[in-house]
Amino acid sequence: YGHCSLVLAHDRQEVKLTRNAAGRSSDDEVSPREKQQTNSKGSSNFCVKNIKQAEFGRREIEIAEQDMSALISLRKRAQGEKPLAGAKIVGCTHITAQTAVLIETLCALGAQCRWSACNIYSTQNEVAAALAEAGVAVFAWKGESEDDFWWCIDRCVNMDGWQANMILDDGGDLTHWVYKKYPNVFKKIRGIVEESVTGVHRLYQLSKAGKLCVPAMNVNDSVTKQKFDNLYCCRESILDGLKRTTDVMFGGKQVVVCGYGEVGKGCCAALKALGAIVNITEIDPICALQACMDGFRVVKLNEVIRQVDVVITCTGNKNVVTREHLDRMKNSCIVCNMGHSNTEIDVTSLRTPELTWERVRSQVDHVIWPDGKRVVLLAEGRLLNLSCSTVPTFVLSITATTQALALIELYNAPEGRYKQDVYLLPKKMDEYVASLHLPSFDAHLTELTDDQAKYLGLNKNGPFKPNYYR
Amino acid sequence: YGHCSLVLAHDRQEVKLTRNAAGRSSDDEVSPREKQQTNSKGSSNFCVKNIKQAEFGRREIEIAEQDMSALISLRKRAQGEKPLAGAKIVGCTHITAQTAVLIETLCALGAQCRWSACNIYSTQNEVAAALAEAGVAVFAWKGESEDDFWWCIDRCVNMDGWQANMILDDGGDLTHWVYKKYPNVFKKIRGIVEESVTGVHRLYQLSKAGKLCVPAMNVNDSVTKQKFDNLYCCRESILDGLKRTTDVMFGGKQVVVCGYGEVGKGCCAALKALGAIVNITEIDPICALQACMDGFRVVKLNEVIRQVDVVITCTGNKNVVTREHLDRMKNSCIVCNMGHSNTEIDVTSLRTPELTWERVRSQVDHVIWPDGKRVVLLAEGRLLNLSCSTVPTFVLSITATTQALALIELYNAPEGRYKQDVYLLPKKMDEYVASLHLPSFDAHLTELTDDQAKYLGLNKNGPFKPNYYR
Amino acid sequence: YGHCSLVLAHDRQEVKLTRNAAGRSSDDEVSPREKQQTNSKGSSNFCVKNIKQAEFGRREIEIAEQDMSALISLRKRAQGEKPLAGAKIVGCTHITAQTAVLIETLCALGAQCRWSACNIYSTQNEVAAALAEAGVAVFAWKGESEDDFWWCIDRCVNMDGWQANMILDDGGDLTHWVYKKYPNVFKKIRGIVEESVTGVHRLYQLSKAGKLCVPAMNVNDSVTKQKFDNLYCCRESILDGLKRTTDVMFGGKQVVVCGYGEVGKGCCAALKALGAIVNITEIDPICALQACMDGFRVVKLNEVIRQVDVVITCTGNKNVVTREHLDRMKNSCIVCNMGHSNTEIDVTSLRTPELTWERVRSQVDHVIWPDGKRVVLLAEGRLLNLSCSTVPTFVLSITATTQALALIELYNAPEGRYKQDVYLLPKKMDEYVASLHLPSFDAHLTELTDDQAKYLGLNKNGPFKPNYYR
Amino acid sequence: YGHCSLVLAHDRQEVKLTRNAAGRSSDDEVSPREKQQTNSKGSSNFCVKNIKQAEFGRREIEIAEQDMSALISLRKRAQGEKPLAGAKIVGCTHITAQTAVLIETLCALGAQCRWSACNIYSTQNEVAAALAEAGVAVFAWKGESEDDFWWCIDRCVNMDGWQANMILDDGGDLTHWVYKKYPNVFKKIRGIVEESVTGVHRLYQLSKAGKLCVPAMNVNDSVTKQKFDNLYCCRESILDGLKRTTDVMFGGKQVVVCGYGEVGKGCCAALKALGAIVNITEIDPICALQACMDGFRVVKLNEVIRQVDVVITCTGNKNVVTREHLDRMKNSCIVCNMGHSNTEIDVTSLRTPELTWERVRSQVDHVIWPDGKRVVLLAEGRLLNLSCSTVPTFVLSITATTQALALIELYNAPEGRYKQDVYLLPKKMDEYVASLHLPSFDAHLTELTDDQAKYLGLNKNGPFKPNYYR
Repeated sequence: YGHCSLVLAHDRQEVKLTRNAAGRSSDDEVSPREKQQTNSKGSSNFCVKNIKQAEFGRREIEIAEQDMSALISLRKRAQGEKPLAGAKIVGCTHITAQTAVLIETLCALGAQCRWSACNIYSTQNEVAAALAEAGVAVFAWKGESEDDFWWCIDRCVNMDGWQANMILDDGGDLTHWVYKKYPNVFKKIRGIVEESVTGVHRLYQLSKAGKLCVPAMNVNDSVTKQKFDNLYCCRESILDGLKRTTDVMFGGKQVVVCGYGEVGKGCCAALKALGAIVNITEIDPICALQACMDGFRVVKLNEVIRQVDVVITCTGNKNVVTREHLDRMKNSCIVCNMGHSNTEIDVTSLRTPELTWERVRSQVDHVIWPDGKRVVLLAEGRLLNLSCSTVPTFVLSITATTQALALIELYNAPEGRYKQDVYLLPKKMDEYVASLHLPSFDAHLTELTDDQAKYLGLNKNGPFKPNYYR
Repeated sequence: YGHCSLVLAHDRQEVKLTRNAAGRSSDDEVSPREKQQTNSKGSSNFCVKNIKQAEFGRREIEIAEQDMSALISLRKRAQGEKPLAGAKIVGCTHITAQTAVLIETLCALGAQCRWSACNIYSTQNEVAAALAEAGVAVFAWKGESEDDFWWCIDRCVNMDGWQANMILDDGGDLTHWVYKKYPNVFKKIRGIVEESVTGVHRLYQLSKAGKLCVPAMNVNDSVTKQKFDNLYCCRESILDGLKRTTDVMFGGKQVVVCGYGEVGKGCCAALKALGAIVNITEIDPICALQACMDGFRVVKLNEVIRQVDVVITCTGNKNVVTREHLDRMKNSCIVCNMGHSNTEIDVTSLRTPELTWERVRSQVDHVIWPDGKRVVLLAEGRLLNLSCSTVPTFVLSITATTQALALIELYNAPEGRYKQDVYLLPKKMDEYVASLHLPSFDAHLTELTDDQAKYLGLNKNGPFKPNYYR
Repeated sequence: YGHCSLVLAHDRQEVKLTRNAAGRSSDDEVSPREKQQTNSKGSSNFCVKNIKQAEFGRREIEIAEQDMSALISLRKRAQGEKPLAGAKIVGCTHITAQTAVLIETLCALGAQCRWSACNIYSTQNEVAAALAEAGVAVFAWKGESEDDFWWCIDRCVNMDGWQANMILDDGGDLTHWVYKKYPNVFKKIRGIVEESVTGVHRLYQLSKAGKLCVPAMNVNDSVTKQKFDNLYCCRESILDGLKRTTDVMFGGKQVVVCGYGEVGKGCCAALKALGAIVNITEIDPICALQACMDGFRVVKLNEVIRQVDVVITCTGNKNVVTREHLDRMKNSCIVCNMGHSNTEIDVTSLRTPELTWERVRSQVDHVIWPDGKRVVLLAEGRLLNLSCSTVPTFVLSITATTQALALIELYNAPEGRYKQDVYLLPKKMDEYVASLHLPSFDAHLTELTDDQAKYLGLNKNGPFKPNYYR
Repeated sequence: YGHCSLVLAHDRQEVKLTRNAAGRSSDDEVSPREKQQTNSKGSSNFCVKNIKQAEFGRREIEIAEQDMSALISLRKRAQGEKPLAGAKIVGCTHITAQTAVLIETLCALGAQCRWSACNIYSTQNEVAAALAEAGVAVFAWKGESEDDFWWCIDRCVNMDGWQANMILDDGGDLTHWVYKKYPNVFKKIRGIVEESVTGVHRLYQLSKAGKLCVPAMNVNDSVTKQKFDNLYCCRESILDGLKRTTDVMFGGKQVVVCGYGEVGKGCCAALKALGAIVNITEIDPICALQACMDGFRVVKLNEVIRQVDVVITCTGNKNVVTREHLDRMKNSCIVCNMGHSNTEIDVTSLRTPELTWERVRSQVDHVIWPDGKRVVLLAEGRLLNLSCSTVPTFVLSITATTQALALIELYNAPEGRYKQDVYLLPKKMDEYVASLHLPSFDAHLTELTDDQAKYLGLNKNGPFKPNYYR
């Protein structure tokens, strides 16, 4: 889920995933680092909040498995051969029911795993407990301190008698730590798989600087991720995020969406479908022309700011909604951000003495002007769908499956296939990821006849897209 | 909000409105009836949970006012003349931020009000406190006992030196109580305004039996209510209810909706728009033909039950989803009810020893078959949108405005205009209700020219619809 | 097809149905009245353009039959009993492939038929020939004179040794003729079935005046017709009418639709779906509020007239688009009428010396202002879908089936069931009409269980709707 | 308009564009080559059907100009500098109102043009006459023989005292002729602009073989063309093509669309929006997964072939619909092709003795099985929208503007910028093309602030997309 990672990396102090926010309260005040815990098999090779929550976490994992049947099917198909036999994977990702399904899939395929969290707030403690109970060496809890964060990563990497040969990272912190503290580990590492925008950016910089010493897979830019995450995920979550926070009625609402990329397209499709009247702002003429053809008015923000009921940013840019815009909004206007930068809405400009902030619900602030006008600001301008709604497990499954395949590919690649560079997954593997998700919809692929394959100049089993397709 | 009322009347023991369910927990264990409370002006003419919550309740009322501008505008237009001056209204409705806006509008128009709750669970305690603080004689709290319930109603009706001349009822319990205990009160009553299906049904029965001794207005069947509540309200809330409970992804889901009346049409429109594949079951060939023309397959439930991901009932019928259907559903199938009967899904049939119930979240049960198959049952088969999502304030505003106008009409009607019978609001008033809601959308009505009005045989100010229009 | 009839009645001199307009040119100049023609069985009991075209007409009828399976199925179900045995029906309708299927169904059910055209331009000559060849006494051709028109009607009614006992009329001209010339015929007539708005209006006037001497069925206002014709028929034909005349691209077009009744709703749904940005004008607050909830801006025509690309009237009113509006439209603006009055657009105001008219295609005029601005006027302001597109046969099938059932009902009704008044078809028959059309969609109705029927207080076989439902 | 060109190149003997097909009949039988014609200025430097039709053609050009305001605006912006001054362009394209607007734009920018038709049937004679009257050396008429075709091309290239320095080609025939007959001409040629799939393919082959001796611009693969042509053009034309040929009702129709690329996506969006139930077949798992998420069932053709009402191919593949499929279709099933190959439907397999073909309308054949079953085949399996509907002028404008800009770029490029290779237009020019089309929608682009541009690492004036974007 592309734009998440970046934000999580940025605001480690702030993000609270909704599911966790539901408030399974901190049982006690003792730091997990100081607790002695043992799972039912007698192992203490983990550090989680409370191993006793394992059963509850197991149920959450089982629920997630139902929407991640691609991974389950991968377990089945690859079980005999154990394509990750011998793999020692050190991982650093969010620790949620969904990533637990990934981790347990890697184990089922033969890997040994040690895992930490890429975000100090995003760990589902029950899930971490369930993983620990199942024998995974997991070091993570919700509400880690900065020091805890690096301690957990260190515990994963630095273990006597065990040396990682694969890295699965989300945000680049683990990779960074190994570079800094244990550069020798890279001698055994066959490859890095990285999911986030930030992490991938760091890898390209390393590569440019000639410092990347192992092959790396850029999962973030894989076709399946790009084509599905932004468009469909935002189409699913924009309505949900708005309803949960404001109970707003969509019918007849005047909305302006800033940016008509994939994220904007997803938001606009959902809002229009539910009866909102949507305007678009764009800087790019090609996206603007698409917006026109799709039946949206393309305007400058100033032209409509006085009359709209909802403002949504989807640009990746900064200061798209300025204090001047906020000053001109009408009473009760809702403002939120679906893009990937925390600065799309200039929230800082609202922290001035003449404005009063009133927290009316979790993630919902009324900012009140001296004349009584209220602007409804969601999630303090951070990502709405990450903060206030959930992401469909099925979409996360696409990314998780891609990560698993990337690990298998790098781990099993013949010497020399991959150099010390950043790679995209081969198109054929993208297509394999997609095909693993079709049974969820009971979708039946058609197969080319020999004659047709010849006519099209394609292999019957794909890849069907050119390599430059994205 | 049509189908709510009936259900609330039916399952007084069960319904929990979401907003309240958020769990502002019971502060103490003393019954409000035993507390001595005084508002800031020294009055004790009320009985609520905790008068100190008034400020918080006031804010909720103010938020609601923003989406109920029709009532606010009614206050302004009718303020000079005070059309309810002298009216003494005894009311029994849900006590929420939205009904508070109605009650305070009635007061602003000149009425004196005494109020109780029509449901033992639906009272927002803070709102009741705010009403009490503002001087309304309100007797209601969340979690009343059956005895409390009737005590509160009695306190409204039975007061020395004050006798009601109007009744506003939702469900018919207040009306019933007056009939039973204080029949003499009807000598002064100018009329009853009733909102719910159940209450209206009771009134028609009284009328048939020749026992209705005052005029009554049936608000439930007013055009504005019928044309807006079911269709739009369900279109707004079906996605919300499903997401909040299950986080289900809509894209590509196979859904079957039982019933293609207004409720079904609203659900189907929203689900199709978000990428679900929707099938319909219908008993009525006219609705079935509409479903066909709208692009849905019309099937028998048995034909699709094995393959669907979600089952939604919208029929008003009973046992639409039977144990046999439930037995044949696939693993993880979600089952919920948007109709108005608690018995659309035969939930009782699931309470058998061989099935295990597991409560996984609030309002979400997994019913587990011996072979491990889980069916996800929402709100135990009660109304999904009432139980698990919110209803747009704007839609409630339409009904509330109609109630206010019905009270004004009955209170001011010249002797003899209304007999001892049940009436629908005159079409022109329906149109007035609608017109009061247009400014929210910045909608501009066109006015007929004299020439056009003559051509059409209509008055320039309406009514525009024939009386039989609904 | 409701609004057709009225228009056809009004502009007998003008309407040209598209199919005919394709221009199968007039073979010769001899009036059919002066020709001697015999069909292959030796009969001369008809008067058509050219009996030799029968084969081509038969094929058109066969094509129509494929979308009128309800009538075919009615033939089959009722064949044994011949419910129209003994019926002598005199009819006056459009004579097209679709009405031919109706006429031949009536014959198959036992009736004898004599038929004339209700419009001097709408007859498909080939179809008339096919009917004549099949033995129907048909008197009609395309391009009749006024005198021909009444001559044909007279030939149907006035025949030695044959006296009609049923009337099927569309527009009321046949009924009028019988009233005027052969009032005694009514002694044998068991009933009149009338389809058009105009004809029904005349019948109600007769009834009011106490001059209606037989029962009459108002087919125009039957539920199936009202619920399907306007909404779905316009949804199907608005895009078609615009494309065939102007090849306009819909994506991103600014459109204003005047009137948001069923016709307007159908047009707006289709245009929005194809990417147009649609504004609405309305006089009725209830329809205006629906437009808002459906995501359309409600404006006054003046507010948007300068910027829109397309103006569509759907009001039933007159002078909705005035010369003043036309003066303010931008260059290339397209103007057309989907309502039922020819006067919705004030076309007369455009016939002034300073404006130049240029016919650019069939049914398309450019009206050119002195400054060179062109307004694109379609069908000279007459009904677009009647003039420039086709009406789906399936929709016509619904009306035709209703006509057939109305004839059967009136013909077989026991003495006294129907008085000398205008009736609507019983709800149950409406539902039967609908059910006959479901197999086309392979739609499967659900049947109530005994228990459910009892719970709902309904008969298992319907009717399911209350009588006031429309 | 991408897939057109290929087909036109393939079936020079067959294609008839609808507009022309309207049948402005061949005035006489004398070949234009043998006529002596002079325009009103006395020039005979052209060869067209009938110079007297110029006025009518001029009107068609003027109508087209209204939807091609990007070219008109290009004329205005570039008029002072005349960026094509000195350019001598030899062109070979369809000769229609739309290409006429392009040709006259090139002239207005300073170029001299000589023009022939790339297809023997697609020339609009009136338009050719109007061009000739305006002084363009045009050699083209509708219904050329193969010999005429090459004669016309030759007349353009081979003229004493005039030598082309630019080529604009559509299909590669002109380029091929110059290579074959006048290779020396390439010494003066600064570049080739090619629009069609076929032509571009030939250029890449030349380039591979080292035989391309001048720079060439591949307009076919420009972003604006790819992103707009297929998706939007097919969304606009699928309904139109089906209605004009069959008058089919869309509501409730069961449709299968083979292929969910851009063409399929456009078709499906329109059909679903109008109430059809759409199934998809796909060979590519990524497109299949998109179809699922968009709410379509993904099936094998065999699974649904017996029940569907309409089959549409959009694959680019061959024999997608086989005789076996055709044998299993139900009566009245409509079959048509929106892809780019004539062989998607195996029409050849239908030309067997046991099947009867019946031409029921222009472009519509009934193929009749021995048991009476009819399959409705449109355009004999050729491209439906090219054969039976029109293409929006606005979409053609995008391509035409790109062609004009490509010519300007190549003609003015400094020595050495372009080698003897095939190029795509720089991204910035794509964006310029898009921006020229925004005023048609009254769309207002937002401009980046300096600060934002810096933050994003972009130039304020674009390009905004990475080069690999397509």
